[in-house]
Parts: sequence; C-alpha cells; structure tokens
Amino acid sequence: MLKAEETVDDLLINNLRLIQKKKGSRFTLDAVLVAHFAAVKQGDKIVDLGTGTGIIPLLLSLRAQDLQITGVEIQEEIAEMAERSVQLNNLAAVIKIVKGDLRGIHKVLGGGRFNLVTVNPPYWSPEDGKVSPAESRAISRHELTCSLEDVVASAGKLLNYQGRFVLIYPVAKLLSLFELLRCSHLEPRRLRFIHSFPERPARFLLLEARKNAPPELKVEPPLIIYEKPGQYGAEILTWYGKEVEPCGK
Amino acid sequence: MLKAEETVDDLLINNLRLIQKKKGSRFTLDAVLVAHFAAVKQGDKIVDLGTGTGIIPLLLSLRAQDLQITGVEIQEEIAEMAERSVQLNNLAAVIKIVKGDLRGIHKVLGGGRFNLVTVNPPYWSPEDGKVSPAESRAISRHELTCSLEDVVASAGKLLNYQGRFVLIYPVAKLLSLFELLRCSHLEPRRLRFIHSFPERPARFLLLEARKNAPPELKVEPPLIIYEKPGQYGAEILTWYGKEVEPCGK
Repeated sequence: MLKAEETVDDLLINNLRLIQKKKGSRFTLDAVLVAHFAAVKQGDKIVDLGTGTGIIPLLLSLRAQDLQITGVEIQEEIAEMAERSVQLNNLAAVIKIVKGDLRGIHKVLGGGRFNLVTVNPPYWSPEDGKVSPAESRAISRHELTCSLEDVVASAGKLLNYQGRFVLIYPVAKLLSLFELLRCSHLEPRRLRFIHSFPERPARFLLLEARKNAPPELKVEPPLIIYEKPGQYGAEILTWYGKEVEPCGK
Repeated sequence: MLKAEETVDDLLINNLRLIQKKKGSRFTLDAVLVAHFAAVKQGDKIVDLGTGTGIIPLLLSLRAQDLQITGVEIQEEIAEMAERSVQLNNLAAVIKIVKGDLRGIHKVLGGGRFNLVTVNPPYWSPEDGKVSPAESRAISRHELTCSLEDVVASAGKLLNYQGRFVLIYPVAKLLSLFELLRCSHLEPRRLRFIHSFPERPARFLLLEARKNAPPELKVEPPLIIYEKPGQYGAEILTWYGKEVEPCGK
C-alpha cells in the first residue's frame, strides 16, 4: 500500500494510521486542534477543504456516528495518498476523497447541503515568507493555489442554513478574517485562543462561524499547548488518553 | 469634604482614596482592569471618558511621571464628587475633571493632541436589560446619554497620530466593536480576554487600539480574575502587593 518515499504514522488515537511522504507536507498539531475543536453531531455531512493527507477527516470520523465526510484536495498525488490512508483504516464507508479545486467545489458536491466545513488553511500570503522549495509543502503552507477569500467563499456555498465553518488561523489577521466571514454570511460564534504556554501571547486561534446566525461571540477558555517544554498540557493529553511526544509544529 | 450619603473608600493602592455615594454608581473591578491594562508613558496627555467618580484617573496617576489627565463626566453632581476626590489625594496638579458631554468634547479639550484615551463604557443598550431605578447608576451602566459609537468617535477625534484607545467591553459584541473602531481609524492592536476562572469562558475583554496604525493584532495571555472563589488570581494580587478582598463586580 506504500509507495517509495512514504511512511505510515500512528496518530496515537484509536489506532488511526496516516500515510505521509517522508519529505513534504507532514501533518502538524494544527490539524489535530481543528479536529478536536469542531462540534460534530451524529449524521453530519462534512467537507474538509484542502485536506492534504486526510488527517482531519480521519480524526473527525471518531467523533460521532453515521458521518459522511468528504476531503477535497487539489494535488492529485496527495489526494491519492489520502485515499490510501482511508482504505488502510477501513473508513471508505465514511470518508470520500475528492480530487479537485475548492473554488467551485460546491458545483461538484452540491451547494447548501453540508452541516460542517473544516479547513487548516494556508496561513501566509506568498509575500510573508520564503516559499518552501518542495512544491507540495509550499502549496499547503502558502496561499499559492487559493486565497483565504476563496476558502471562505467556498465554505459559505457548501454550508446549509446554520451550518458550521471551523478553521485555525493566525491571531495577527483576526480582523481581516472576521471581515471575510461576514461577507459570506458566516457569523463568528465560538472562538478559542491557542497559547503555547499560559503566560505567552496567543499566535493562533480556533474559530467556529455559523451561516446566517445572529451576532453573538463566545470566547472559550484558553487552550494551553504545553504544560512545560516537550510536554503537552492536560487537555491535549485527554485526547490521547496517555503521555505522547509532541508532534512537530 | 464629604456630603450626606457619601463614603470615602481606600483603593488599597498607594493610599489612594475615593469618594463615592453610598448608593448609586460605585466602582467595580472593571475600572481597575482598564487602569492596569493601559500602557502609560512619562508625559502622556490622557483623557478618561465618562470618568464617573474619577477612579481611572486616580489609578493612572500612579503609572508614570509628568502625566496630564483629564476626566470627562456629564453628570454635574458626580463630576463635582470626582473633583473632591482629586483634592483629597492632592492630585490637582495631575488630574483635571471637566463637566461635559463626551460628544464634542474635542472642541473643549482640543482635537488630535492626546496620547491615550481610556473608557469604562456603558456596556448595554437600554434594550438589553432592566434600567436601574437609581438614575445615575443607570447612566453609567446603560447607553442612555451616549452610544458606543459616540465614545469611539470622540476618542478618534481626541487622539494624536498613533494615539492609544483603551477600553473594557463584553466579548459577545467584539465584532461590532471592531467595526466601529475601524470606522474611526482606530486599529485594534492589543487584546486581552478576562476569564473569571481559567476554565471559564471570557465574558469581557480589554482592548488597545492605535490611531492610524497598520493592522496587526496581538492577543496577550488570558487575565484570570479568581484563583478560587473569593480570592484574586496571582497577577491581580501583584497590583496590590498584598491580599485584598475582591471588590463587587
């Protein structure tokens, strides 16, 4: 099931395993945070935009019964790898990987029929930093193939009335995120700031917006990543149910 | 120096004392939080809008040398009481209380010449809850004499280039606050969420916006009010330098 230059990694939760390239876009804690922050209900129809290796669909599949999860990935080679991870975990009945561009994906999947859209988006504009020489990694980390505006617009079209959009995003750009969301009638409702340590500023946030919802924001307790260097905080350890080594971020 | 139905209260910081009515608008922790969150530099020219009993100017007076602080209060009786608190603390050289409406106050104090504007604003629209029967208390807690839009517009006119606007505000209305600020060219730059306990959602936030600044938001570590019921958290205790009883909120 493995190709050259690939590894199978244990996600340390319910024996989930993930196929990844040895070099290139390997998963980070960001995806794990998105999957745990999202509220998931039995029977939800879910789309994960820019799914990459499919880690968010895999983790979401554990959260409730009778889910229908679609992972959308533009890079053919990565989409095919995600598809093999789905088979490896016997989750083909729950997770479907679709190779395609998220711009216009509502025409393929159907508009206004999903309860939840998740994304671990490209954070940076290409101007913000050096683009990675490994192209697939560059596409995941930079806004090369789409902008946040495209991502938000796509989520707005996929979601049904009161559908939920969940993403991780850098704190520094919170205001432009809010503005984009409101343009797509996605109202920010649930916000959680991620602090590496309790006394440190938050660099990233988790957000849930609801389509066509009235404005009323809730800021949840801070999420503390590390208890001390090299050791996850208490809340994250409850996800794993055991001591785990922090993954690269 | 005291009138009937008034008390003198020890602010428990540097022997500051505050004249308040026995009944009516008595100070809460909100004002203390604003005064500690604001960045204050030597020689700053400061305006506190809707100053009430003058507690924010009194606390700010300790933060740096050579300050010129103006407290603006629309209610004549409260403004006169604040003036007596300034005299009681021998701070007439630092703090001036001006009786007036904050709408148009830049015409009295001068536009574009202040480094810092602070406010502990009325949080609620009159529709949000029952208006207090004690009128002065109602004016402080509800948007009876001015709206947040008036407060923000006034701050925008008073501040100089890169001047700082600091306020406390309910989390639920964060998005409309951001929109109002940007309309007055006040860019949110520093945000801190206030959690009563570490595991509880934040109901209030402290915000610093800077006039004409580029967009780049920083979310500081969460501010935890109580270590356990009836006992302030470690950070708040450092302000007092001793164990203190939490004040009513």
